[in-house]
Parts: sequence; C-alpha cells; structure tokens
Amino acid sequence: MRRPLWIKHAAQLVTVADGNGPRTGAGMSELGLIEDGSVWIENGEIKAVGTTAELNTQFGEWEEDADVFEAYGKLVTPGLVDPHTHFVYGGSREREFEMRLEGASYMDIMNAGGGIHATARMTRDATEKDLYLQAERRLDSFLRHGVTTVEGKSGYGMDLETELKQLDVMKQLNERHPVDIVPTFMGAHAVPPEYKGREEEFVSLIIDEMIPAVASEKLAVFNDVFCEVGVYTPEQSRRILEAGKRHGLTPKIHADEIEPYGGAELAAEVGAISAEHLLKASDGGIRKMEEAGVIACLLPATALYLREKAARGREMIDAGVPVAISTDCNPGSSPTTSMPLVMNLACISMRMTPAEALVAATINAAYAIGVQDKAGSIEQGKQADLVMWNVKSYQELQYLFGINHVSAVWKKGERVV
Amino acid sequence: MRRPLWIKHAAQLVTVADGNGPRTGAGMSELGLIEDGSVWIENGEIKAVGTTAELNTQFGEWEEDADVFEAYGKLVTPGLVDPHTHFVYGGSREREFEMRLEGASYMDIMNAGGGIHATARMTRDATEKDLYLQAERRLDSFLRHGVTTVEGKSGYGMDLETELKQLDVMKQLNERHPVDIVPTFMGAHAVPPEYKGREEEFVSLIIDEMIPAVASEKLAVFNDVFCEVGVYTPEQSRRILEAGKRHGLTPKIHADEIEPYGGAELAAEVGAISAEHLLKASDGGIRKMEEAGVIACLLPATALYLREKAARGREMIDAGVPVAISTDCNPGSSPTTSMPLVMNLACISMRMTPAEALVAATINAAYAIGVQDKAGSIEQGKQADLVMWNVKSYQELQYLFGINHVSAVWKKGERVV
Ligand SMILES: [Zn+2]
Ligand SMILES: [Zn+2]
Repeated sequence: MRRPLWIKHAAQLVTVADGNGPRTGAGMSELGLIEDGSVWIENGEIKAVGTTAELNTQFGEWEEDADVFEAYGKLVTPGLVDPHTHFVYGGSREREFEMRLEGASYMDIMNAGGGIHATARMTRDATEKDLYLQAERRLDSFLRHGVTTVEGKSGYGMDLETELKQLDVMKQLNERHPVDIVPTFMGAHAVPPEYKGREEEFVSLIIDEMIPAVASEKLAVFNDVFCEVGVYTPEQSRRILEAGKRHGLTPKIHADEIEPYGGAELAAEVGAISAEHLLKASDGGIRKMEEAGVIACLLPATALYLREKAARGREMIDAGVPVAISTDCNPGSSPTTSMPLVMNLACISMRMTPAEALVAATINAAYAIGVQDKAGSIEQGKQADLVMWNVKSYQELQYLFGINHVSAVWKKGERVV
Repeated sequence: MRRPLWIKHAAQLVTVADGNGPRTGAGMSELGLIEDGSVWIENGEIKAVGTTAELNTQFGEWEEDADVFEAYGKLVTPGLVDPHTHFVYGGSREREFEMRLEGASYMDIMNAGGGIHATARMTRDATEKDLYLQAERRLDSFLRHGVTTVEGKSGYGMDLETELKQLDVMKQLNERHPVDIVPTFMGAHAVPPEYKGREEEFVSLIIDEMIPAVASEKLAVFNDVFCEVGVYTPEQSRRILEAGKRHGLTPKIHADEIEPYGGAELAAEVGAISAEHLLKASDGGIRKMEEAGVIACLLPATALYLREKAARGREMIDAGVPVAISTDCNPGSSPTTSMPLVMNLACISMRMTPAEALVAATINAAYAIGVQDKAGSIEQGKQADLVMWNVKSYQELQYLFGINHVSAVWKKGERVV
C-alpha cells in the first residue's frame, strides 16, 4: 500500500469534471474550476477533489501519513490526452525539411529519402528494438509536455508484418512506459508504390488479411483510413471501416484534409468515433457530424507546419460538434510532441477560448479514444493523471504562448516529471 | 582564477564564426560547423574552438585541471540573442486574450483594462521593485529558452518618470541577472491619450526633455519609434530619430507593420541599425535597406499571434538584406519568450532555412544591437555564452518544432540552466 498523495493549494484546479458524453457548445467552456484546490490520491487513483479547506476537513487528520505536495500559486489540470499520433516510425526526416527550404525539387527530395514512402521503407527496415527506442524518446517528450495518454497509429508498414511490428511496439511501450497508449490500425495510410494502379488489391488485402490479423491479436482498438483525393475514395474508405467494425474495431477517419471529399459525411454515416483534420470539411459534413455525435479531432500544428489555414474550430463548436485537438505527431507534416503549443494554436488559429482549448485537450480527447472512464478529468475514481503548470491560471497557460509551462506531472499518482 | 571549462564531443558545434559585418545572402547559411566539436573556456571567455582532437592536442595535458563537460551526441550553438523585446512592463493581460476570444467588444476590453494604454497605466502604477521582479521572471524564462542577451525597450511609460523607471530596472537587472541587457529608449511607442490631438506637443517633449534626460544618464544605447499610420508619421519619426542621434542614441524603427508607410525607406535614410516588423515593407524600401545595410529584424511570433502573414524573410535574404529574428516579447502582440519557436517560425512561416534561422538568432541579432564583439558566435575572445540542445543537429533543432530543446546554458562560462 502506497502512501496517499495530497496535492494542495493549487491557485486554480481545473477538474474538467465529466458530464455525459463529449462536451459540446457551452459545455466546452465548463472547466469545473476550483480555486485553492486540492486532490487526495490513494494507490494511483483520485479519492477526493475539492477546495483545500474541504479536503482538510475530510483528510486533515491523516496528513502526516500522506506525501504532501504544495501547488501554491500554480495551475493544476488533468494530464493531457493526445488523441491522434503516428509516433512509432523509423528513420528521420530533418534533412528533407532543410532541402525543401533550400528549394530542392520533389525528385531531389525523393532521391534523398523523403516522403511517406521513405518513412515506410525506414520503418520496414528498422528492427523492433530500434522502433521501440525511438518511440520511447517521443513518449518521454510527450510526458515532459504534460501528455499522459496518447493514441498511436500504425500505417508506416502497409504490409502485414510491419503493421504488426508497429502495433507490437505500442503494446510493449504501453506495458513499460508511464504514458498510456491506445493503438489504432491504419493500414490504409497511403497506397504503397508497389500497388499503384492496383489499389483495389491493396484494399482487399487490408480487409481480408490485415484487419482480421490485427483484430485476432487484439493489437488495436480503432481502424483508421486516409480518405483523400488520390489516396482512398470514400467508397473504399467505407468498405475498410465497415470491415473493421465487423472485427470489433471502431472507425476513425482522416477526412477532408486537402480537398472537400465527403469524409466528414462518411464519418457520420459509418458511426466513426472521430474524424480527423477536417480543414476542408463542408458545412453539410459538419452538420452531419453534429447529428451523429462524431468528435472533430483538429490538428492546428499540422496546419501551421504545412502553411494551411487551420480547421474551422470556432464554427464547429458553435455548430454543436464536440471538438478535440491533437499534435498529429508524425515525421512528414507535424514533427512535434507539444500539446501545449497545440492548445495555444487552438486559440490563436482556430479562435477557440482558453477554456475550450483545455477541454479539447483533456476530456474530449479522452472521449475521442474511448478512455473517458479513466482519463481526461480530475474526478473521484479516475486515474491520478495530473499536471502542475508554472502559471497561475488557465488563461495564462494559453496567453503566454509557445512555452512549455509544465512544472510537474503525475501518472497514476507517481511523479514522472 | 576559475578552473577552465572544456565542453567536448559536441555532435555539431555551430560556431557561426563572425565575418565582417552582419551576414547577408549566402553568408547567412555559413554556420562554421565543426563535427565532434570542442570549446575551451577560461575566466568566462572562449579561449579556443576546434575539433575535440585539435583541442586535445592543445590542452589535453591540462585536462585534469579543467571541468570537463561531455556534449556527446548533442548540438552546441552560441547563446541566442533576442534583439527586440519589451520585457519590462507592469500588469498582466491574459484576461484580455480570453475576452477577445469570447467575442468581447473593443469597449468591453478597454473597460476591463486592455490595450497598450492599460499596460502603460499599470506600468506607471507599478513600483520599481514590482517591475523588477516581473521582468526578472521573464529573463529567467529567456534563459531557459537559450537566450543569453536581450534588447529591452522602454515605452510603457510615455512620461519621463516612468520611462526612466523602466530603463533603470533594465540597468539593475543587467548588473544582477546572468542575461545581458541592451537598453533602448522608446518614448514614441504610442501617443498617450492625454496628448490625443496634440501629438506635436508630445513629439517636442520626447525631443526636448526625454531624449536629453535618458542620454545624460546613459540609460539607453538606442532610440526607437513606432512609425505607423495613426501613431507617428515618417516626418515625426525622422525628427525623433535625428534628435536621438545628436545625443548619441542610434536609431531603430518599428516600420511598416500594419501599412506600407515608408518606414523601411526612413530606416535607410536616417542610418538606423535595424528596422523592425516590416510585414508590409515595400520592394523599394527593402532595396534601400539593402543599400544602406540596415538589418531587418523580423518577428514571426507576432505575426502568428496577430494572425498576420509573416514578413517576407526569404525575399529579404535573397535581396541581400541582413536578417535578424526576435520574439518581440510584449503583453499585447507577442507574450512569449521563446526564441526556439521564433526560429521554427522563421523556417515555417518565412521559408528561411534552418541555417539562416540560426544565423538570424545569433550573429545577426548581435549586430542588430551592437554586441557583436562579445556575443553571437563561438570564437576566441568572445564571452562564453553557449547552449547545448537535446538534438543531434541544427536541422533537427528547427524540424522538431514547437519544443524547447535547451539542455544546458552557459553564460560567461557559468552553467546557468
Ligand atoms: Zn494522422
Ligand atoms: Zn516592438
């Protein structure tokens, strides 16, 4: 039996206490804020939440049996949840970034090992140990940025063996690393060059071989597809997602990132838990997502990196769509692990309020990957995943932008940063 | 006599070894990069720079008398220089940020204490000790982000007493804080409300009273003015800058941020050391800056925060203008201390290469505030201001964006982070 932990005197304790289902509309601004807040933790679980005075009444007599942490003057929030990442991959593409800025041509970059197919090749070639060690460093960085739960996608193999290798790395890391990992199968991340012109064959391979294999080994919770002009059509995407459902994998969908292509609509039709990117989502698609309760998972760091206009986060919230935000951590279009920056960009680029950005990065992100029962808010019975920030308020967290204000992180009640 | 310090085995040691004058054109890509690099430091000064093998030949026999720091596998660069900040101010405006995003009107925000005049009022009201303590925290944050020298501007007083108070805070901090501070007088930062409609009277006050007082107390090195439609005209700006010159203050100018207004041209005509912002600078203005050797000090974090298109950094470099970059740290349009993010944005938003971004944040930034003799590069005889980054290369420093990769900072040879 571990000693209890009492975190006390937080200037603001943002509980984001859970309601029923993902937050929408005005609910996205409800922070469950407690001034001079306290949390009492036993065996990695949150036992009580309230003002320091309240918890003093309840637990004061056991104070000397507990570890006491003074959060005086600081903001405390739930551990952040990053609901969309591709953090397991081989190789490194910083030279491609430089070459693009030096004006290199597409062919120069491909020849120098650029693009998603280069990452796929390097991921295929990497040993499982190499992949593990690289991904572990990224999880360490997530943790330093206040992220205590991440979703992770396969999709840099696009052959069964490598897809399983990526998912297996996530499984191992989930067992050994403090960050919780929720795995997603994404065989339909691109069309492998060897299937160019034979896309249907690859779709069949995903449906007939990969999905059954992944599902039978229980290596994934979700099934994701890149529905985009020149990648997978809505019709192919639908078949892949329906096949996943038959095997118990809940649909997710990379939708309407580059062109409006009916991805948001499809998300609603197949009952996806979330739709991702949505930079070019149509008004009709947004309306359908609202009706079906599909969570919009928005990725403003990717938009920044690609110099695109960010998704219409403000309009989606106003339209009643539940919004989550994410890093999209990946080597091609968002090589970052900074959820704090993503929250800042939600405000700056998508006109979300500081409160909405925090809800989108905690409880709504938890709903987007099905971990709302244990993560995403500070409530009795949930895992004690918490972050103390070196600011006095949730407003300052977003206003003093571009800075990682993380001061301490607890995962299941253990101090990990 | 302090023990020597030997930093060795840097994967990449980026010296940015100084040439003659601010870097331009292809010179902005010359990093003076040494693989397996070493620096030998004595009494806070750089004594020798080279490969670890070279320094081993030169100093190996004295190794046991030195403190040895292993930078194995890491990038080491000069301490960053931030050549444009307004880091001394009173009050706090995160609530204004939130209100704007909640859709508050201009009047609501003014009533709640928003805008530059609110900061001016709070700066006037603050005690010198309050200002000192607030500014000290910001300098601590700069240091954690690898910044070892900053420029700081007055301009939140706009009355003589408060301007002197701001400059005096900088003088005291410069004496006591590890970060070196280069002070700029900027009485012409806005028109105080009490001089509305009597702008010429305030210009006279600046010229006849403030500049002589600041200069006689040697509280500033530079004289800056906000030349913008609705603030100071080019003609007023010219008179203010010429008056400063007569008192030994070198001109700087906030130019063409919101409208093209001839600020870049004026910078060239008055012999300004640098012109700032330049989002809307004309082609002719850029050409004149190139001819006169005026440094363009570009502020991409401000552009991001204000949702403006960033300055034309790529074109300015291609046109032969020396480019520096800066946070513009201030409470209204860029509340950040992150030069690492500013470097990332120089690449992402202004299409500068990773090498150019680093030159712009080191040696060119040093030239922009006249400290090139002691800062901005790793060279024999300069101050030992260095940063070790938790990345293996200068490319990764920009590619893995939105992350503060600082791992260690030395100021005049002392480990301060
Ligand atoms: Zn993705
Ligand atoms: Zn400024």
